[in-house]
This record gives sequence, structure tokens and C-alpha cells, in this order.
Amino acid sequence: MMLINGERKNTLAVTDRGLHYGDGLFETIEVIQGQPVFLQQHLARLKTGCLILKIPFPAETLLLDEITRLSKDAAQAVVKVILTRGSGGRGYRQPDAIQVTRIVALYPFPDYPESYKSAGIKARFCELRLGLNPVLAGLKHNNRLEQVLARAEWDDEFQEGLMLNLNEHVIEGTMSNVFVLKDQVIYTPEIKLSGIKGVMRQIIIELARKNHIVLQEALLTREFVLAADEIFLTNSVIGVWPVKSLEHKTYPVGAVTQKIMAYLAAYKVAHLK
Amino acid sequence: MMLINGERKNTLAVTDRGLHYGDGLFETIEVIQGQPVFLQQHLARLKTGCLILKIPFPAETLLLDEITRLSKDAAQAVVKVILTRGSGGRGYRQPDAIQVTRIVALYPFPDYPESYKSAGIKARFCELRLGLNPVLAGLKHNNRLEQVLARAEWDDEFQEGLMLNLNEHVIEGTMSNVFVLKDQVIYTPEIKLSGIKGVMRQIIIELARKNHIVLQEALLTREFVLAADEIFLTNSVIGVWPVKSLEHKTYPVGAVTQKIMAYLAAYKVAHLK
Repeated sequence: MMLINGERKNTLAVTDRGLHYGDGLFETIEVIQGQPVFLQQHLARLKTGCLILKIPFPAETLLLDEITRLSKDAAQAVVKVILTRGSGGRGYRQPDAIQVTRIVALYPFPDYPESYKSAGIKARFCELRLGLNPVLAGLKHNNRLEQVLARAEWDDEFQEGLMLNLNEHVIEGTMSNVFVLKDQVIYTPEIKLSGIKGVMRQIIIELARKNHIVLQEALLTREFVLAADEIFLTNSVIGVWPVKSLEHKTYPVGAVTQKIMAYLAAYKVAHLK
Repeated sequence: MMLINGERKNTLAVTDRGLHYGDGLFETIEVIQGQPVFLQQHLARLKTGCLILKIPFPAETLLLDEITRLSKDAAQAVVKVILTRGSGGRGYRQPDAIQVTRIVALYPFPDYPESYKSAGIKARFCELRLGLNPVLAGLKHNNRLEQVLARAEWDDEFQEGLMLNLNEHVIEGTMSNVFVLKDQVIYTPEIKLSGIKGVMRQIIIELARKNHIVLQEALLTREFVLAADEIFLTNSVIGVWPVKSLEHKTYPVGAVTQKIMAYLAAYKVAHLK
């Protein structure tokens, strides 16, 4: 089920700049009992992205209404919101009056086994290196060929692949952010030159700080991550997945990871009340 | 007028990965008297791109037939070909059986004044830096946010903006490749970390070499380009545009640029026979 500029449709003008240039942004939002989870945080990130890419942010009531219409009857689902710069302009040059395309689509919740949360997942390092681009780093924009190519490196042997950037720093998973515990400090890669600043990443950073767990954004090497005491991955749909193995190394679903998962569960309950 | 997988349509499935991830490649081809110019070179580049992005290249007869159908009645036009990885897959993960989307669209030829060729154009340097990514460099893929953002830096005061990459090397224009003459040697930026390897760029390289003009691919600084004796820009639609000014500096439509333009004109005539 999807809405394009508020209308039930499943096709889009071929002229849309989203198709031609990946000229847009998106959000992937969990829906529980008809409620989009952390909706304000998602909309805030979308707004920030629009500001940087100079895409006019649509009337918020319109977007909220469309997201609500699609979510309200879903017990558990995912809502994807895409905003593109619409059609028009000459080549890369944008039109003088940008008519944003709003796409809101409801997807079934992915059927991940419960064990991914309870026992952890298997991860690997990807061969492909993320490029460097300080202007685009952080944004969840629609230029995602790097993730597509990285995800094509394996089939079902692993649940996620960690990506390094050209500077050989670990940045993120193909669809998740990464946190590693070493000597009671949580580290997560700084997202300045590559990578996406996940909404769930930000929530985890805030939950850790609120609960007096030391957390630092830092430049992390492959060796540092491999030597971690605990590793976990986050995104808005999976929440937190502990990593039980990375390459040849194994990790426990450790005490700090379990604490973070408990804090997140409690925060979600409070948020959804 | 456009064809999607051979059918006359102007809409596309919203699920297409071209929209979601810019997961595709494109070509922009000049059409003269019903003939797509340098078609084999364009198809060869598309094929190379497909190989690198692991997008199955469609049956060439199919593509040729569609391009011919749209081009045959056009006196002068532009044909844009887009190939995307189609719909399906789970998130970034591509489907097991990729069903490529073929889009072939006919556009009017842009109404550039004749003076752009005869007297040259005004250029500037863009603020935005191209990111670095050796895997994607060279390809005309659909992740083009950098070009969109760079082109939004000015309106009509200039005809093109030259882009540097994060390493502060001049790489290309937002929609063109760049050649500079210094002391009777033509230099063009090497496209290894950033930028697109234009079909016209390759043709100019070959024409220069065939006609014993020394041409080198090199790392070029902003200062080197500014200090050039002649500068010209190329793409498949504009052919060659001399640069008459870049920032505060002015340049002649010099003898070597004129030679290159003449070689190209002759080569095109021979090609179209």
C-alpha cells in the first residue's frame, strides 16, 4: 500500500529526479499497533536532510496525515517515506519551483528470527570501501549504490556486513550503525566523512549517556572492532542486534549490550504510551 | 516520448531500485538526422558499467531497436537510456533474479546559443567537492547528488562549473569533462577516485593522439587549470565548448581547441556516413 503525494498509486512519473539522480531522502520507520515509532525523530532527520540538500520540506501535517493513514491498522509494519526533488529542471539543474514528490509506503515487518536479538547475529567485513564526502555524510539520501554493492558481497551466511571507508575506518553496517564495547566504554564511529547517522544510533547515544554508560564517537580501526568485548548493531527496524561473531572472532551477548537493549525496550514503551 | 521495457509509458513502478537507491546507469546520446551518434561507444560504456555494478546487460538488439524507434524521425534530439536493477530484493539486497528496467526517452536538443561553440563559455569553480570512491569513479551511474548540489550553486551567470574533489584536484565540470592546454600539451584529469569517464572525453583523447597532439591524463590543481593557455569542455551533447573565462581569468578560443573541434566535426561526419 502506498501514497504518492497523498494519492493511492503504485507508479511514479519517469521524469522524477529521484530516479534520474537519486535526488531525494528517505526514512524507514517501525510501526507498532498502528503507531509509527520515534516519528518525531525521523521527521526531524528528514527535515535536516532537506535543509542540506535544499529540498523544500513538505507541510508537516500532510506528511503526518499520510503516515498515519497507512500505519493506523498495522499491528507491526514498516513505513518508508521518500521525498524527492520531483520532476523538472534541465539536467542536474533543479527547477526554479521545486515540486517535491512525497512517497509513503507500508511494508510488512521483516521476519527476522527472534534469535537475532537473543543470541546475536553473524557479521563480516565488506570488501567495498565507503567513499568520502563530508557534505553528504550523515544523510539518509537516495544515493545508495555503495550499500547495494556491499550487500551483494554475500548471501545468507551472515546477517550483516561492516563497512570501512577509504581511510580504513570502520563506519557502519550496510543497513545499521555499529557500537563496540571495550573496557566498559562504548565506542561508535564518528559520521563525518562517510556513513548515515541513524535515528536509532542517536537514541542509543542518548540512552547510554542518560544511564551513565560512557560512550564516545571515535575513529575506529578494523583491529579495534575485532578486539572488542561486545559489539552490537542498531537501526530503526531491528532495534539492537548483538553481534555473536565477526570474521573469525566470537562475542558474548554481554552485560552492557543487554542493558542497552533493556533501556531501549523501556524507552519504547514510554514513547508509545 | 519514452519507452519502458519497450512499452510506451511515462510512469514507472514506485518499487524500482533506480528510485530507492539510484541503483542504475545512464547514457545521454546525441541524435542527428535520426541517427544516434557514437552509439557503439555509449553501449560499450553502459556494458562496462553493468559489469561493475553487476546489473545484467539487456539483449543488445532490444536496446538498439528501442533507441532506433525513438530516434529515427528526429532531426536533432537527445536520447537518454537508463538501466536500473529493477524492482525487488530486500532492502539493499538485490533480488536473486534481477529484472532490469530499460528506459529509453527522447528529449528535444537543448537550445544552446551558437556562441558557446564559436566564442566560448563562462565557467567558475564550484564550492562543493566531489567525494572519493575508486569503485564508482568513471561510471555514469544514477547516484548524482553531488552534481545536483554543485549545479545549484549558480543560476545563469555561468554555463558550467568545474568541480574539484576532496583531494583538491580538478576533476570535471558538473556535466562535462575538462581539457586544458599548457605549452602545447593537452592535460585532462585522470578519473580514478572521482568523476565520470565521458564518451566524448574518450573520443577526444583518441582524436588528439591520432593527430599527434600530446595529451596526458594527470592530477591537475586549480592553479594549473587557471594558468592554462586554452581550456575546453566536452560531453556527448555539447561536443566541445571552449572556455572563454574561468573565475577572473580569460582565455582565447585557441588554435589547439579549434583543431580538436575540427577533428571532431570530421570524425562525426565520417561516423554518420
